[in-house]
Amino acid sequence: MTAFHAIDLILKKRDRIELSAEEIQWFVQGAASETIPPEQISAWLMAAWLNGLTPGERNALTQAMRFSGETFDTAPLGRFAIDKHSTGGVGDKTSFLIAPICASFGLAVPMISGRALGHTGGTLDKLESIPGYNTQLSLAEFASVIERCGCSIIGQTDNLDPADRVLYAMRDRTGTVESPHLICASIMSKKLAAGLNGLVLDVKFGSGAFLQDFDKARYLAALMVETGEAAGTRTVALMTAMDQPLGRMAGNWIELWESVELLEGKQPPHSADLLEISCTLAGWMLFIGSKAASPNEGIAFALQSLRNGKALDHFLRMVEAHGADPSLFANPAAFHKPACKRTFNATKSGYIASMDTRLVGWAVQRTGAGRERAGEPVDAHAGIKFLAKPGDKVTAAQPIATLYGSSPAHLDEAAALLTKAIHYSDAAPTIAPRIHSVPITAQNAVSYTKEPA
Amino acid sequence: MTAFHAIDLILKKRDRIELSAEEIQWFVQGAASETIPPEQISAWLMAAWLNGLTPGERNALTQAMRFSGETFDTAPLGRFAIDKHSTGGVGDKTSFLIAPICASFGLAVPMISGRALGHTGGTLDKLESIPGYNTQLSLAEFASVIERCGCSIIGQTDNLDPADRVLYAMRDRTGTVESPHLICASIMSKKLAAGLNGLVLDVKFGSGAFLQDFDKARYLAALMVETGEAAGTRTVALMTAMDQPLGRMAGNWIELWESVELLEGKQPPHSADLLEISCTLAGWMLFIGSKAASPNEGIAFALQSLRNGKALDHFLRMVEAHGADPSLFANPAAFHKPACKRTFNATKSGYIASMDTRLVGWAVQRTGAGRERAGEPVDAHAGIKFLAKPGDKVTAAQPIATLYGSSPAHLDEAAALLTKAIHYSDAAPTIAPRIHSVPITAQNAVSYTKEPA
Repeated sequence: MTAFHAIDLILKKRDRIELSAEEIQWFVQGAASETIPPEQISAWLMAAWLNGLTPGERNALTQAMRFSGETFDTAPLGRFAIDKHSTGGVGDKTSFLIAPICASFGLAVPMISGRALGHTGGTLDKLESIPGYNTQLSLAEFASVIERCGCSIIGQTDNLDPADRVLYAMRDRTGTVESPHLICASIMSKKLAAGLNGLVLDVKFGSGAFLQDFDKARYLAALMVETGEAAGTRTVALMTAMDQPLGRMAGNWIELWESVELLEGKQPPHSADLLEISCTLAGWMLFIGSKAASPNEGIAFALQSLRNGKALDHFLRMVEAHGADPSLFANPAAFHKPACKRTFNATKSGYIASMDTRLVGWAVQRTGAGRERAGEPVDAHAGIKFLAKPGDKVTAAQPIATLYGSSPAHLDEAAALLTKAIHYSDAAPTIAPRIHSVPITAQNAVSYTKEPA
Repeated sequence: MTAFHAIDLILKKRDRIELSAEEIQWFVQGAASETIPPEQISAWLMAAWLNGLTPGERNALTQAMRFSGETFDTAPLGRFAIDKHSTGGVGDKTSFLIAPICASFGLAVPMISGRALGHTGGTLDKLESIPGYNTQLSLAEFASVIERCGCSIIGQTDNLDPADRVLYAMRDRTGTVESPHLICASIMSKKLAAGLNGLVLDVKFGSGAFLQDFDKARYLAALMVETGEAAGTRTVALMTAMDQPLGRMAGNWIELWESVELLEGKQPPHSADLLEISCTLAGWMLFIGSKAASPNEGIAFALQSLRNGKALDHFLRMVEAHGADPSLFANPAAFHKPACKRTFNATKSGYIASMDTRLVGWAVQRTGAGRERAGEPVDAHAGIKFLAKPGDKVTAAQPIATLYGSSPAHLDEAAALLTKAIHYSDAAPTIAPRIHSVPITAQNAVSYTKEPA
């Protein structure tokens, strides 16, 4: 490979001269192997943060990161490999429904997930609330579980996309995290390293989302769709509102509990949004994977697989294949043993008008269910169950949530945040649709790739 | 001192939120002591490069750097302390005239100078062509020489402005050198650390200047004037054209030779620009230092001190105080012993229309007189003597320069560059004035502090 000089690549990015794919590849390898000194990596990242990346640079960065370590080869599975990625939210447990739904139609779903951080929960922490569930499989074991169950959810392996680990840690220290271009490359390089034929993105906007502003979230969505398509992966993004917790449970074990209720075909009213978003994402995946003639037919199929128990069957097989006892799900309530429990009452009579979902997420974190910094432990049984959601009419002192936590002090903190998060109104509020009507696809992405101010 | 977090300072600079003087001071101390990791220093520098600095940030950065190590206290000298700083050029030897001129009128001139690098020469290298001249005095010895001779020219001490050394090395590795704000802070912090009451800046523009574009050079000049004035140092900048070598000698010893001719009151025609610029700068210094009622009176005084031998006397005393034998200057030609010598002839008949002075500077460097990288040795006797300058009528094969160098190969390289550098014309060219008519002062600087595109 041609050798370049890091200083030249910095000057180009600083002066908005497009870097070649070879230059980007050299830079990523040098960063991952730490042969480029830290001050040169960070100077480039800050220039990229401030000047952005061209589509060619973004694609090259994503591909160089994707191939910086081992990759997962889905070809031997002989099935269309597809995944869903969400930009993170509160109570977001769609993976537990989507993976088995898609698997039940013969798709391969190799899901590589992350952990809770800050106000957002983590799929791995939720799965690890199931005693015995091993999230740390090798790629060979991962393939074997998918072979048998159609889906598997694991954590990132040490050798998958090592460049992202180095670059992310560097960005975290140097104020270069929140660049849509760098976020896109980070997310997409990890997803593409899993050898996907298709990918459906769930890009959140609203008070609980990483990117609260709709236009900024859609811009990121468009960048990711273009990057996925450029790499040969059929990619679609749905824009979904994260302006209230998704479903009625937010925590770890209690999210699996809610998921299994839906997998059993139940439709609790306060889980309606979870059902809608999960089935819509799964519907698009079935369509992209040629298991349905349209996204709408895919949605109908998804609902069907919940009603006929096939999705539940795949879920329980996956849990067992990961080393856990699926019989726990026969009575999820009985397994739920939080250290502390407290009822949270409405402070006013009227309607629940809205929830500051970022604050709700922090309330969930403070119960003990999440973590403030990477590496901290989480409480499997902590979390919040919502008995009322925006749009519901309530009376003062009516219980509207149940808090589960590690200690009374944890619940005090969570309750204080939740009190601040919930807003009331006298008139019935208008609740916006949870899913924006226009999905971002290969066809329309380009019209959203102008960076919002 | 309050402790800050480097990441917060990076985010502020990235997001164009003004940093406080305390934050800047903390950052400079952390950079100089290397307690802030390199990737955070460079991320901040790149953000500053791309977003610029506010006047408050620029002043705070300059002051924090100025006071990052030892400073020179001029108060005990009991005289108005003033210096001149040039942004660098080819054949620029004005310091050797200006320092003794000002000293001869009772000003204190504490000059801390630099070395040749790239296409520009260095005052220290020129002085070290005088056998025995010691440029590495302690600040106490520096004070003693100024006490006795009125002026002294030394190199930077290890403990003067150590923050600049760390930040400059970092900028050199991270593509953050050419920021007018950072350049201003680097230059001004070193000058202010010398305890100046007044400072006259010689800011070059044109083909041989660091900043070729007039507007960009004037912008830097305005930033420096504002920064000096904010620190309580009377500061003026003259804009001078560096579109041909200054005077008729470019090298080391030969530049001292030319300087001494002018100190002896001679006025060789091809040294006219050197005489004009030196006396104008010195005139402003005499005015600022209250030794003349106006800059024009100062210029007249300066010429007078060349004619009456007082400036030469101060120069020779300074040379002797630095450990060298001033009698060498009785016959500078006799001391000049280059290893090789060659005549350079005009390639065409007509007028010398212009010189690409950056290329001329590289030609001088290739004779052996300069260095490509810091730390390389220089040849005291190498350089170029110009027998014709822009505006002169020449005939093909007429000698227009004499090359002095370390070896025939050195002269081959220099001649090739000089051939490329010199342009001819059939008609007499128009030679622009060497000194721009509007000096940048405390009164008008603000009107030039809008960054040119």
